Amino acid sequence: MTTQSLLGPDTEPARLHDLAQQLRVDAVRASTSAGSGHPTSSLSAADLMAVLMTRHLRYDWEAPDNPDADHLVFSKGHASPLLYAMFKAAGAIGDEELMTTYRRFGHRLQGHPTPELPWVDLATGSLGQGVACAVGIALAGRDLERRDFRVWVLCGDSETTEGSVWEALDKAGRHRLGNFTAIIDVNRLGQSGPTELQWDTDAYARRVEAFGCRALVVDGHDLEAVDRALTTAADGTAPTVVVARTVKGRGVAEVADREGWHGKPLPEDLAERAVAELGGERDLRVRGPQPPHGSPALKVRAPEVEPPRFEPGEEVATRVAYGRTLAALGARPDVVALDAEVGNSTHAEDFAKAHPTRYFQSYIAEQQMVATAVGMAVRGFRPYATTFAAFLTRAHDFIRMAAVSRITMSLCGTHTGVEIGADGPSQMGLEDLAMMRAVRGSTVLYPADATATAALTTAMADLPGISYLRTTRGAYPVLYGPEEEFPVGGSKTLRHGPDDRVTLVGAGVTLHECLAAADRLAEDGVPVRVLDLYSVKPLDTEALLRAARETGALVVAEDHHPEGGIGEAVLSALAAADAHPAVTHLAATGLPGSGTTEELLHAAGISRDAIAAAARTLADRHS
Amino acid sequence: MTTQSLLGPDTEPARLHDLAQQLRVDAVRASTSAGSGHPTSSLSAADLMAVLMTRHLRYDWEAPDNPDADHLVFSKGHASPLLYAMFKAAGAIGDEELMTTYRRFGHRLQGHPTPELPWVDLATGSLGQGVACAVGIALAGRDLERRDFRVWVLCGDSETTEGSVWEALDKAGRHRLGNFTAIIDVNRLGQSGPTELQWDTDAYARRVEAFGCRALVVDGHDLEAVDRALTTAADGTAPTVVVARTVKGRGVAEVADREGWHGKPLPEDLAERAVAELGGERDLRVRGPQPPHGSPALKVRAPEVEPPRFEPGEEVATRVAYGRTLAALGARPDVVALDAEVGNSTHAEDFAKAHPTRYFQSYIAEQQMVATAVGMAVRGFRPYATTFAAFLTRAHDFIRMAAVSRITMSLCGTHTGVEIGADGPSQMGLEDLAMMRAVRGSTVLYPADATATAALTTAMADLPGISYLRTTRGAYPVLYGPEEEFPVGGSKTLRHGPDDRVTLVGAGVTLHECLAAADRLAEDGVPVRVLDLYSVKPLDTEALLRAARETGALVVAEDHHPEGGIGEAVLSALAAADAHPAVTHLAATGLPGSGTTEELLHAAGISRDAIAAAARTLADRHS
Repeated sequence: MTTQSLLGPDTEPARLHDLAQQLRVDAVRASTSAGSGHPTSSLSAADLMAVLMTRHLRYDWEAPDNPDADHLVFSKGHASPLLYAMFKAAGAIGDEELMTTYRRFGHRLQGHPTPELPWVDLATGSLGQGVACAVGIALAGRDLERRDFRVWVLCGDSETTEGSVWEALDKAGRHRLGNFTAIIDVNRLGQSGPTELQWDTDAYARRVEAFGCRALVVDGHDLEAVDRALTTAADGTAPTVVVARTVKGRGVAEVADREGWHGKPLPEDLAERAVAELGGERDLRVRGPQPPHGSPALKVRAPEVEPPRFEPGEEVATRVAYGRTLAALGARPDVVALDAEVGNSTHAEDFAKAHPTRYFQSYIAEQQMVATAVGMAVRGFRPYATTFAAFLTRAHDFIRMAAVSRITMSLCGTHTGVEIGADGPSQMGLEDLAMMRAVRGSTVLYPADATATAALTTAMADLPGISYLRTTRGAYPVLYGPEEEFPVGGSKTLRHGPDDRVTLVGAGVTLHECLAAADRLAEDGVPVRVLDLYSVKPLDTEALLRAARETGALVVAEDHHPEGGIGEAVLSALAAADAHPAVTHLAATGLPGSGTTEELLHAAGISRDAIAAAARTLADRHS
Repeated sequence: MTTQSLLGPDTEPARLHDLAQQLRVDAVRASTSAGSGHPTSSLSAADLMAVLMTRHLRYDWEAPDNPDADHLVFSKGHASPLLYAMFKAAGAIGDEELMTTYRRFGHRLQGHPTPELPWVDLATGSLGQGVACAVGIALAGRDLERRDFRVWVLCGDSETTEGSVWEALDKAGRHRLGNFTAIIDVNRLGQSGPTELQWDTDAYARRVEAFGCRALVVDGHDLEAVDRALTTAADGTAPTVVVARTVKGRGVAEVADREGWHGKPLPEDLAERAVAELGGERDLRVRGPQPPHGSPALKVRAPEVEPPRFEPGEEVATRVAYGRTLAALGARPDVVALDAEVGNSTHAEDFAKAHPTRYFQSYIAEQQMVATAVGMAVRGFRPYATTFAAFLTRAHDFIRMAAVSRITMSLCGTHTGVEIGADGPSQMGLEDLAMMRAVRGSTVLYPADATATAALTTAMADLPGISYLRTTRGAYPVLYGPEEEFPVGGSKTLRHGPDDRVTLVGAGVTLHECLAAADRLAEDGVPVRVLDLYSVKPLDTEALLRAARETGALVVAEDHHPEGGIGEAVLSALAAADAHPAVTHLAATGLPGSGTTEELLHAAGISRDAIAAAARTLADRHS
C-alpha cells in the first residue's frame, strides 16, 4: 500500500482519479467485510464525491460543528460504503473502524447513515427525503442565519420518482436557493431493474428546469467535467441539479452496468479481483477547502415570551389559542413556523403577521413542510409545522425518519375528529393520535381549552424530540384560569368528590362532553370524577391509578378511531402498573359524513349522552 | 324561472354559457343554503365543466354502473357545489335535494364528494389524490379491460404543489395514457392567498410536458377554446393536461379574483345579488354524449387458485411465501399486483414472472402505487400493493382516503421490525401496525410461518375493505401443515397444558421467540401456553379470554413500537370483555441500529430471554 501526501483543492485530475479508486476499493472492502451493503451504488458515485470532497465541499472534518461549514447529505443513504470511505479518506475514521464495525451491532457505521455520526446531519435511507430536508437546511442558512455555507446532496436516480423530490426542487426553485446543489447519480439501474428514465439525462434536465432549478448534465466519470459542473453550481446564482450520467458498479468489470447487483456485497473472491482491478488499496488523505472560522452558532436570546391569556368562560377554539401563542413564541428568535397553505384555518398565520421573515409557506406540500422543518431543526431552529391533522398523514414517513434523526420539532394538527362537522371525513383527523403516539420518543398533547393550549404550545418549544399538539376546530369555553400550569405528563381533575363512582376521561372536545355528562349524572345522583388527559404521551399514570383505585371504573372518550389513541394509551398505562379497573372505551366508529358537531359526536358514539350512558352502566355494574 | 330544452353534444356556445351560469347559480345557492362550502372554487370551473358534461363526457347519468362510461373525478373535491350542480343539470338529483341536504347530517351530498353517491368513484378532499387514483382507473381501462372509456379529472391549481400530482403525471406519461385528461383550474388563488405559480400557465405547461404529458393551455372561460382543448384531449393520442386559466369567483363581481373568499359561502344578500348577476335561476337539462351500451363488467372466473404448500420444519421467509402465493392467486383474472421497485425484496416479483400483464411497476413512488391500486379497485380489480412496511407510511394519507372511499384492496408490508438486521432503522417497519389498525374497517394480518402466509394472502382476495399483511424478512421454520386453516379473526394455540401458568402471545417473528421461551420455561418447570395471534384485527377475543381465565396472565411480545400494535389490541379486546388478567407487554423500544436479528431482538427487549423473564416474573407473582 502506498501512503501518499495530502490531497487539497488544487489536486490534479490524475490524483482525483486515484482518490476515486480508493473510495471504490474501500466501499467494496467495507461491504464485503460486513456481508451486506450496497457497493455498486457506491461505485457509480465515487468520482462525483472525489471531486466534491477535494475541491468543493468546504468542511473541516475535525470540526463538524462549525456553523459555517458546508453540508453534505447522502439522500441515497444506501451508498453508505462510499460515505464511510470518504470519512476514511478525510481522516475522520480509520480503516479498522470501517472494516470491522460497518453494519455491526452497537457501532456507529450503520447500514444507512444516521446522526450518531458527527458528520451526518440526517438519517437517510427512505428515498426522496434527504434532498427535501436539505432544502430546509439551505433555506435556514441563507434566509435565517445569513451564512454562506452550501448544501450538497447526493441523490439516486431511482428516488426521483418520489413526488417529494419534486416538492423539494419546486421549493429550491421558488426560493432561488443558490446555496443548494443536488447531484443525481444517474446510474440507470435501480434495485430490481432499470430505472424509469434510465440514461435519459435530458428528461431529467427538462424536469429540473421546469421546476425552476438549473440543470447541468455531465458524464459523472469525467472528473474535469464534474469539477466544472460543481464550480458552476457553487457560483451561487441558482439552485442547481447536476445530472450525472454514471455506471452502476463502475470500475469493476464483472458488475459494471449489470442487473442483479443492487444491495449485494461482492463475494470475497470477486472483491479481491475488484480491488486489484481498481489498483489496490491506497491511503490517500484529503483536506478539501476549509470553511471560514465559524462565527458563533445561533444564540437564543433569553426568551421574553408572553403567551396570550384567556379568561374562564369565554369561548375560544384551541386552534385560535395555538395561533396566538405561536405568534407570541416568535419573541424567541429560534422559533420558526411552517404552513401548508392552510394558515388561515390553523391560525398559524398569526405568526406570519408578527414574524414574516420566520414564516415559511410550503403551499400544499405537507412532506416538504415537514422536511423543511427538519432541515431547520438541523440548523438549531425550533420549527412549528402546522396543517390539518388529517393531512399530516401525508408526511408520516418524514416524521418517522425525523425520529430516527433525533430531530426536535413541533407539529400541530388542527381540525381533528368528527367534531369538524360539515366538511366531512376527508378533512377529519381520526388517525393522528395513533400515528403520532407510535413515533419514537414523541410527546403528544391534546388541550381542551385555550389556556391549556397556550401553556402546552409554549412548553413544546423546550421539549426534546418530536412533539405533537392536537387542536380542535370549534370554540369551547375556557376552563382554566391564566395562571394554571400544565406540566407535560400531567392531567387535570375537574370534577371529583368522595363518592365518585366512575371516572370520565376526556381530552379536547370530549372533555367538554365529559363535563356535560358529569353534570347530568350528578343531577341523577351518580357522582363522577372528570379527568382532562391533556398529555396523551407521556400519560399521567398516577392520576389514572388514583382514579381507578378511588372510583373503580373509567369511561374513556375520544374523538379518534378506537385504535392507537387515548383509550389504548390509558389501557397500556394501567396494564403496566398492574391496575385493572373496568374501562369502557368510547371512540369514533363508523364512517362519518357531514353534519353539525353535535350530530356527528352523537352518531360516533362519543357524545355526552353516550358517555353518561356508559358511566351509568359501569356504576350499576360496580355498585 | 325558464325551463328549457335538453342540451346535447351539439349545443351552441351561447347555450353552454347559459348552462355554466346555471351551474354557478346552483353552486352559490347550495353553499349559501348550507352555510358552508366553496362557491368561489366552483365558479372558476363552471365553464370547463359545462363544456365537458355537454360535449365530451360520455356518461349516462341513469346508468352510472355502465362499465364503458367515462369517469369524472373531482380531484378538487371542495368544488362539490359545482359537482352537485352538474348532477342537478344532468337530472340525477333534484333542486330540493341540492338545496335542503347539501352538507347536512345523514345525507349523501356531503361537503366533499364520496362514493355514497352513485356518480362518484372516489372520495376526494385530500388534494393531489384524485388525479393519482384516476391514473389507476385509466390504466385499468386501457390495459386490463381494453375498454374505450376516458378518465377526466378536475384539479385545483393549489394541489399541483403536492408531489403526488407529479408521481401521477409521471405514470400517465410513462404509460402514454391517451384515455387520461386532467384539467387544472388555474384560478390563481388558494385557500389563504395567491398560489405558488399564480397565472403562470407556461410554467404549468413546462412541468406537464417535462413529465411526459401533453399540455394544452386555454382560457378556461372561453367556451370554444375549452371545447377545442377537450376535443384534442379526447383524440386519445396522449395523456393530456388542460391548463385552464380561470378566475376564482368568476361571474360574481364582488368576489371575483378577490382574496378572502376561499371556502366561504356567500352571505344571503350577496348570494341574491350574485344569482341576479348570473342571470337568475335556470332549469337547463343536459344529456351529453352517451357511452356504448356497456359490455358486461369484469367477470371473475371461478378461481382455480392453488396456493403453494409448505412442509413443517423447512425454513421459509413469510415474504417468500407471500410472493409465491401472490403468483398463484394470479389464476384469478381480477387479481393485480403493484410494486414500488422492491419486488425482488418483497417477492411480489414472483407475480410479475407469472402474470406480467397484470403487474404494475410504480418505481419508488408509494403514493402512486397505492393510488393506482385504488383506481384499479374502482374498476373491480383486487389489487395487491407491496413494499417495505416502513415505506407504506409514505402512502398513509392515500390509505386513509381509500377507507373513506370504501375501497377493497390488499396491502403487504415486508421487512418489519428490528428483525431485519443490518440495514438499520430507516428500513424497519415499526409503526405499520399502529397505522393500519387505525384505518377504518381494516383487517390486519401477521403470519408467523409460510403456511399461514399462504392461507392469509389467499383469504385477503375475498376480504372487503383494506386488508394488510405484515411479513418478515428472515426465514423461520414452517409451523403448520399445509391443511391447516387460518380464519380471519382466529388464532392458534401452539403450546398448552392443564397447568399453564402464563400465556405467551406472539405474532410473526416474536411467535418463534415465544416458542423458544416456552421450551426453556418448560425445562425449568414453568409450563406456559403459546398463542399465535396471526389476526391482529379482528382479534380472537375468545382465545384471549380463555387464556386469561385459564392461565391468569399474559405476556404479549411484538416487533413494533409499543403504541398502537398488538399489545394495545390485546388490552382493548380484554377491556371490552371486562377481563382483567395481568398483562406484560414487550415491544421494541429505544432507537435500534444495525446488527443481527438476534442482537436486535435482544436489545429491543423482545427476545426469547426477555419473554421468558417476563413470564417467570408473572408466574412468580401469580403463584
